[in-house]
Parts: sequence; structure tokens; C-alpha cells
Amino acid sequence: MKSKKIILRVIKIGGNIIDDPARLDVFLQQFATLQGAKILVHGGGKLATQLAEKLGIPQTLIEGRRVTDAATLDVVTMVYGGLVNKKVVARLQALECPALGVCGADGDLLRARKRPVKGIDYGWAGDINAVNTALIDRWLGQGLTPVVAPLTHDGQGNLLNTNADTIAQEIAQAMGTAFHTELVYIFEKDGVMLDINDPHSRIARLNAEQYLDLKARGIVSEGMIPKLDNAFAALQKGVKKVIIGAADRLEDLLEGASGTSIAEI
Amino acid sequence: MKSKKIILRVIKIGGNIIDDPARLDVFLQQFATLQGAKILVHGGGKLATQLAEKLGIPQTLIEGRRVTDAATLDVVTMVYGGLVNKKVVARLQALECPALGVCGADGDLLRARKRPVKGIDYGWAGDINAVNTALIDRWLGQGLTPVVAPLTHDGQGNLLNTNADTIAQEIAQAMGTAFHTELVYIFEKDGVMLDINDPHSRIARLNAEQYLDLKARGIVSEGMIPKLDNAFAALQKGVKKVIIGAADRLEDLLEGASGTSIAEI
Repeated sequence: MKSKKIILRVIKIGGNIIDDPARLDVFLQQFATLQGAKILVHGGGKLATQLAEKLGIPQTLIEGRRVTDAATLDVVTMVYGGLVNKKVVARLQALECPALGVCGADGDLLRARKRPVKGIDYGWAGDINAVNTALIDRWLGQGLTPVVAPLTHDGQGNLLNTNADTIAQEIAQAMGTAFHTELVYIFEKDGVMLDINDPHSRIARLNAEQYLDLKARGIVSEGMIPKLDNAFAALQKGVKKVIIGAADRLEDLLEGASGTSIAEI
Repeated sequence: MKSKKIILRVIKIGGNIIDDPARLDVFLQQFATLQGAKILVHGGGKLATQLAEKLGIPQTLIEGRRVTDAATLDVVTMVYGGLVNKKVVARLQALECPALGVCGADGDLLRARKRPVKGIDYGWAGDINAVNTALIDRWLGQGLTPVVAPLTHDGQGNLLNTNADTIAQEIAQAMGTAFHTELVYIFEKDGVMLDINDPHSRIARLNAEQYLDLKARGIVSEGMIPKLDNAFAALQKGVKKVIIGAADRLEDLLEGASGTSIAEI
């Protein structure tokens, strides 16, 4: 039994950062200087949709999730696993952050199963079965910073498109046995707002009881509910803290001076 | 001083394998079962040219080398670093080969400089300065099999397009201090031929003296000369053996039953 576990931060960035080169660069500068063990998980932003359009591959989104046919799987493999991942890694290297860009197939990092068809066929979409925690542990021990593209594999030779939020959550949960893990979701707003129209109504800290109350009173916006439900689920599964907020000042966000910190009590 | 160094094989595959899914699969099956330390370096084949065509990005080749403008760099990053690399890794994982797909930016594996303009401007093309041998050593020690895409980085945030033959050679040379390295080039012919029109005229073993003699007599084909010059240069820089041949039976090739083995004496 370790009495004091090392902090590991799993930070997820999505379209609002990836699609804006200037914001991405500011974020990466802050991420690079962040002390301690860290993992970056990135989405693909609009680039995959844009490339699919240029190539004349029709895209179908159902409830915000991309239906991944074979041609679309190639597109996301190129954009997520290649373009976005390698550009981020090259930039982090320049910032002296020893980044290692991987997808879930690399080193058998994220083993998944093709999502079963239940009414909707999402195609080559994957739900995670296993996180290779021993591998991540070794990489972190060597001082490497994993940069994870939102692709998994099924162990039978197929890549699978997997939601980046879910990948971040699964990694943070799995690493929770060895580390004090914090799961950080960077998004367009500065956390959970009491009033979506008032940027000063940020809730700095939210526990399960308060959340249930806010939900019952209809104060939490519809779009936030799945995010927050997942955040509280992550806390149940070994994550110590979930932070949701904007990327403007990463240090403020991690210290609670911006964004919303979500904790059990 | 180690008296017996472990064999490390650096195997490079190019277009004739990458562009043919059935041949690629046969090759990967053989590669996966190969015992001992190994590294796979792959080219991109015709896929990058095909994607550039679809996207309306004009391609210029000078003496077989691609001029890499910014749009083309994105294309090769997607195709080499994403599509080809991750598909190969997923397939190797299914074959129980613990592959780790990387480009030269990952873990600062291959540091390069943008090729200086001397008459011809090759754009974002890189010439290698340094191979991170300590990192490769750790990966091999962990049982991982690196699968390397032909991209390097300049340490200033830029990815660079780099010839896969050269990457294989530089890795093999750099690893030569710690391992007994063998550099294997898979290509379309079964090695060096005395008579290019006679498939039975394979030269099984070629040393420097014999090569000079063949070159003087005009027997080695023009296309083979740079390959062989590089092979002999690699031997001068710590590589123990260079093998050139077809992929039909990888084991035969490694044992000298097919292809051409190039050694100093």
C-alpha cells in the first residue's frame, strides 16, 4: 500500500481547441510546462468531416456520434491517428515535453469490441474492454507523455473509432489503482453554469448531492447532463477528481480558480 | 564488452508490399512469427499520391523524391503516420506481435533537419541528425516491436518527410553499437541479379570487392547502384549484414536461401 499516490492528470481536448491553431498552441504551451505525470487525449474536431467532404464520403451523425463505415474509418485513422496526433506530438517535442503519440492499437493500449447493432449500426465504432495500464505505467515511468488519438482496436486486426471523452474516462479510471487520477475535460465553457447566459455564474465545486438537486430543479443544461453523469460515474470507479472548464489558463483550472471541480463529497 | 550481441533486424517494406493488401498480409504473418528483436520501417506506397490526387494537390517528384509542400506534408502525415502505420499495427496485434506504431517525432525518435535548398527545394523533407537509441533499446527490452512511419521532426515543431530506406539504414547503424544489426530491404526482385532478365541469376552473397568488379563491368543495373552503395556504407557504419530481396518467404531471405546478402568480406 502506497500512502501517497502520485497525481496523474488525464486531460482531454476536443474540437474547440483542435480546430483553432492559435488556441491549440496556447494550450500546448501550458500543457508542456505542467509538472507531474500527464496524458493528453485528443478528439479530431471538424478536420475529419472536412476531409470526408473533400473526398465525397457522406457522413452520418446520430445523436452526435459518427457512423463509421469503412471509408470513414480510413478518414478518421488518417486525421486522428496521423494529422492531429503527429502535429501535436511534434509541437510538444519543440516545447521539450517528451510526447509519445499513440492510438489504442499501439502496444495494445486500448482493446475494444465493435459496438453491437441495437437498432442503430454505428459501423466501425468501438466500446473499450481493457486499458493496458502496465504499458502506460512504464511509459510514465520513463518520463514519456502519452498523446492518445481516439482510435481503439479489436484484437482481430480492426481499428475502431472511439469517443475521446470515453477514452479519457476509461484511462483515468483504469489508472486509478496506481495513481491519484484527475480527469480534466477542456471544453468551450468555463465549467458548469447556474445560468447558461451568465458567464459569472460558474459553479466552482459540485458534489453528487448538489448535482442531484440542480438536476431536479432543471438548472443543469441538457447538454451537460451526460457529461456530468459520466463524471460522477468516473468518481465511483476510482477517479479522484473530475474538472470541466475552458483552456484559457490550464493552471487556474487545475487549481480550482476556474472551471468546475466535481468530487463525491 | 558483450561477447555475443543479440541480433536486431531492421526490416523495410515499400510500395510493392504496402500497395498490395494480400502480399502485405502474408508479409505481416511472417514478420509476426519472426523470433528475436525486430523493427519494421514502412514506406507509403502509392496511397499518398492517390490521396493528393483526390484532394487536387499537385505532386512533383524529382529523381524519385517527392517535393513536400505544406499540403503534401499533411497528406503524408495522414497516410504514413495514420492510415498505413495504424493498419499495420492493428494487424500485427491480431497476430500477437506487440507492435508500437511511431513516427520520428514520437519520443523524439528521429531528429532531423530540413534539407537545405541547393538548386532543388524539396520543401518539408528531412535528413536525419540523431536516432534515439536509448528509447528503442527500452522498447525492445519491453518486448515491443517498433513500426516506424517515414516521418521525422526538426525539434522546432515541424514534421519532415523522410525516405524510409534512409530511416531503416540510420536506425540499423545507430543500433549497431548495442546489437548485431541486420538491415533487410524487401523489394520487388529476389535480390541482385547477374542478368536482370534471368530470375535464376541471383547473387546470393556479395562482398565489396565483388561489387566493385561487377560495377566496373557494368553488370549491376543503374537502379541497384544507389541501394548497394548505401548498403556498403551501412556496413562501414556498424551494420553487420544487409539483405536485399523479395518478401515471399521472409525466413528464407534471412537465412540466405533467397535474396542477396551483402557483407564486407
